[in-house]
Amino acid sequence: MDPDTVAKAFVEHYYRTFDANRAGLANLYQEGSMLTFEGQKIQGSQNIVAKLTSLPFQQCQHNITTVDCQPSGAGGMLVFVSGTLQLAGEQHALKFSQMFHLMPTPQGSFYVLNDIFRLNYA
Amino acid sequence: MDPDTVAKAFVEHYYRTFDANRAGLANLYQEGSMLTFEGQKIQGSQNIVAKLTSLPFQQCQHNITTVDCQPSGAGGMLVFVSGTLQLAGEQHALKFSQMFHLMPTPQGSFYVLNDIFRLNYA
Repeated sequence: MDPDTVAKAFVEHYYRTFDANRAGLANLYQEGSMLTFEGQKIQGSQNIVAKLTSLPFQQCQHNITTVDCQPSGAGGMLVFVSGTLQLAGEQHALKFSQMFHLMPTPQGSFYVLNDIFRLNYA
Repeated sequence: MDPDTVAKAFVEHYYRTFDANRAGLANLYQEGSMLTFEGQKIQGSQNIVAKLTSLPFQQCQHNITTVDCQPSGAGGMLVFVSGTLQLAGEQHALKFSQMFHLMPTPQGSFYVLNDIFRLNYA
């Protein structure tokens, strides 16, 4: 399968899950997975999902502007996303950039080894 | 050496070189290196530097806002940068995000395997 197609499918799945049911992201991460969220470093699927579900907003919607991807070696893939995050009740959407390092699983799928998220303040 | 220190040193070196002498970036890339610049895919040190030196501006200055880094496996390191790019003669700086995937060289240094650059339009 074309890497760009895989990257796009991953990104759509990730943000759809984030916006509908953040706890459902748990199976995309593993124990060695790392998240850096606005500079805060978190490791492991359970801790990462605890962080994401504790963010101080309930409803949100990600809108994707760009998705870039490159092979990273060893069957891995880097996915670089820019977009906006609309929080319920807020007038203006927040701009963000996020990168994922996806690694293959024995089952032929991918998990997120690295995840770095930053808001792009105006 | 602490990965955050390495990442910060790399970022400072990269943008200082970019702003002073773009052709000098050639030795940070190798033949297998990939650059995705505003969606355009380029491979190999020579092609990457040809792209960077042909950008339609001469003088520029990068200012770094954030640098995040994570180990990516196999001795590699992911570096995620946000900042602004001031072009000579332009009133407003452009916001950008960029990620680098650094891999170790036998000489104990790093080269850029993956590089993805995006302007963050307001």
